[in-house]
Amino acid sequence: ALPRAFVTNLTRVINAEKSEFNEDQAACCQISVRRREPGLEEDEEWLILCSTQFLTGYYWALFDGHGGPEAAIIASNYLHYCIKQKLEEVVGGITEARPPMHVNGRCVCDSDPQFVEEKHIHAEDLVVGALENAFQECDEVIGQEMEATSQTGGCTALAALYFQGKLYVANAGDSRAILVLKDNVVPMSCEFTPETERQRIQHLAFLFPKLLDGEFTRFEFPRRLKGDDVGQKVLYRDYFMEGWGYKMVEKADLKYPLVHGHGKQARLLGTLAVSRGLGDHQLKVIDTNIEVKPFLSCIPKVNVFDFALHDIKEDDVLIMATDGLWDVLCNKEVAHIARSFLAENRTDPHRFSELAKCLVSRARGKKRGHQWMLDDSHEASYDDISVFVIPLHNRDEDC
Amino acid sequence: ALPRAFVTNLTRVINAEKSEFNEDQAACCQISVRRREPGLEEDEEWLILCSTQFLTGYYWALFDGHGGPEAAIIASNYLHYCIKQKLEEVVGGITEARPPMHVNGRCVCDSDPQFVEEKHIHAEDLVVGALENAFQECDEVIGQEMEATSQTGGCTALAALYFQGKLYVANAGDSRAILVLKDNVVPMSCEFTPETERQRIQHLAFLFPKLLDGEFTRFEFPRRLKGDDVGQKVLYRDYFMEGWGYKMVEKADLKYPLVHGHGKQARLLGTLAVSRGLGDHQLKVIDTNIEVKPFLSCIPKVNVFDFALHDIKEDDVLIMATDGLWDVLCNKEVAHIARSFLAENRTDPHRFSELAKCLVSRARGKKRGHQWMLDDSHEASYDDISVFVIPLHNRDEDC
Repeated sequence: ALPRAFVTNLTRVINAEKSEFNEDQAACCQISVRRREPGLEEDEEWLILCSTQFLTGYYWALFDGHGGPEAAIIASNYLHYCIKQKLEEVVGGITEARPPMHVNGRCVCDSDPQFVEEKHIHAEDLVVGALENAFQECDEVIGQEMEATSQTGGCTALAALYFQGKLYVANAGDSRAILVLKDNVVPMSCEFTPETERQRIQHLAFLFPKLLDGEFTRFEFPRRLKGDDVGQKVLYRDYFMEGWGYKMVEKADLKYPLVHGHGKQARLLGTLAVSRGLGDHQLKVIDTNIEVKPFLSCIPKVNVFDFALHDIKEDDVLIMATDGLWDVLCNKEVAHIARSFLAENRTDPHRFSELAKCLVSRARGKKRGHQWMLDDSHEASYDDISVFVIPLHNRDEDC
Repeated sequence: ALPRAFVTNLTRVINAEKSEFNEDQAACCQISVRRREPGLEEDEEWLILCSTQFLTGYYWALFDGHGGPEAAIIASNYLHYCIKQKLEEVVGGITEARPPMHVNGRCVCDSDPQFVEEKHIHAEDLVVGALENAFQECDEVIGQEMEATSQTGGCTALAALYFQGKLYVANAGDSRAILVLKDNVVPMSCEFTPETERQRIQHLAFLFPKLLDGEFTRFEFPRRLKGDDVGQKVLYRDYFMEGWGYKMVEKADLKYPLVHGHGKQARLLGTLAVSRGLGDHQLKVIDTNIEVKPFLSCIPKVNVFDFALHDIKEDDVLIMATDGLWDVLCNKEVAHIARSFLAENRTDPHRFSELAKCLVSRARGKKRGHQWMLDDSHEASYDDISVFVIPLHNRDEDC
């Protein structure tokens, strides 16, 4: 049976209805991982089918599209399938306390288990690897699909997987997931933007200067330089620097910077506000032949939360949302809203989905004249806003 | 006047006297940074000389050589000079509360201070940048010097700089610095080894496969593969994976792995146990034309400790040591030894240097037959052991 409390109480609320087009997409489903009998080969498929067993996972994901919704739509239809596939490839190792050196469990070398132990490889690492590989696979599929249909665009991807008693959150982009627990807030992702990944991006341009085609400078400056700066020593950073130095400005430094701007205005090649995600295979810098894709990464960072190590309370939730929410509400504010809302609505069976709606409406704000304002009179979010609220208590009650 | 308590109480003790040759080197000195009058140009040098002022820093460094002591000797004679030079290049910005966009303090654009503030650039960031640039400069000098004298080898570098009320620790290699304070231990560095930098190293091999010249495989496996593994699916990791997967073994996977082994046995290209440091410009994998240097980084990670934010007690110390110490004693053990030793010898004016000797002798152990053993009967360190113990209290008393 399904863990009803875990699946049906979540919700997704998409688009704050300010823009004409919504580029956010959401997906959630159960993932059934077919468990092979250890020792059976591919050609003994009929035997497998006779004794099929499944491991069940639960999956939620948010995709924030740019340059059109197409990549986000393909990703929302396909990423869970990639994850299922990649989990099935390693399922022989996931069901063991300690994954075997060989997926079929056969030992080639007596000391194999010892080598695996020395490397501290656990079943959890196979799930992390499966998620990393699934994002890469999904990115390739999107590339092929978009090329075949002459479409363009890309999307961020934030995926949560509950599997074998652990929560895995894989993130590529600027969406965010946090756990709001009774006594603390646990960030489950970090954002990948041109600012947070400046050194990786600059390093690639250092290794392959041709990628900039003479149109951009690799260096970071506090502002775009102008003619008057030439011959002066100004603040700068190169790929290997976390600190800052002074650089004598040459004419080439007046080019547009590879990573430029600050905060929400930061851009990669003057084009993209995120540095990881899926798609964008055809994306070029406007009026040039410079490709953006080499600087993007489709690889997620995966964070793991082990429920066995925590005492989960009734109102504890996982909150996933696109940047539309986090641009105007910080973790602390979201946690405060969630705790008060859930405490005040304890008897409402739909309180988790109502909380998601409440968060969207708080971030969307209220219309005052031509402006949308938050309760505290700050400007509200003009971006698409998508929120998942997933209760963590009794998550296996019906399993 | 010099801060006597700060400089004279430290000590260095080199070589545990087990090996014939010592490859560790240490250095410590005062660094005087010449402060230019803001607004003066290079050609007004005579004006500068008339009004010279100095900012004073204190510097300690440990270098652990490999392939001979030469690189470590050059580094110990030269790194502080590079740091002084790089600090002087940015001194116009260090003396301001907020560094100016232009080092000479002239404003090209009215909103320059605002751009600098938006990027959160502080004087501290200029010191970090100067250290990063100094390591790179020192590496180039070592390369030229070693080539000119037909010498080979490299070294790790751990440098501490006390400057303007803050402690900066720059590390490239597997030495370590910790602060032992009354109530806690603060790690001031992390180690750079083929294991901790696996993904960076594998990624470079992915981008430039020719660097491996067909002799090594980029993939990591729990052990070196053999003929019997071909056609089997075994545990592996590629550059983009923090997790593990299973890979169908091909013949090419039987090559020696780029990063191989575990813990102290981990090696880069079967050759080096560290992945950052200075020198090694000529180093090739034995019997091949494969260069190791492209995989090495000379860039340090810099950690900063602001004394203004902490109440420093009489027995609080900075402990810096090469891997010879840390291989056999963990942070907790070293902190315990330091606290008890200093408490028991409070009246001894040489207690800090005595503590350094004590730590070296604990890690060296005692000879029992042909073996050197620790007090707890574990094997002692056979490596060179160098330790600095630097008292932090009253550090500016005589300034």
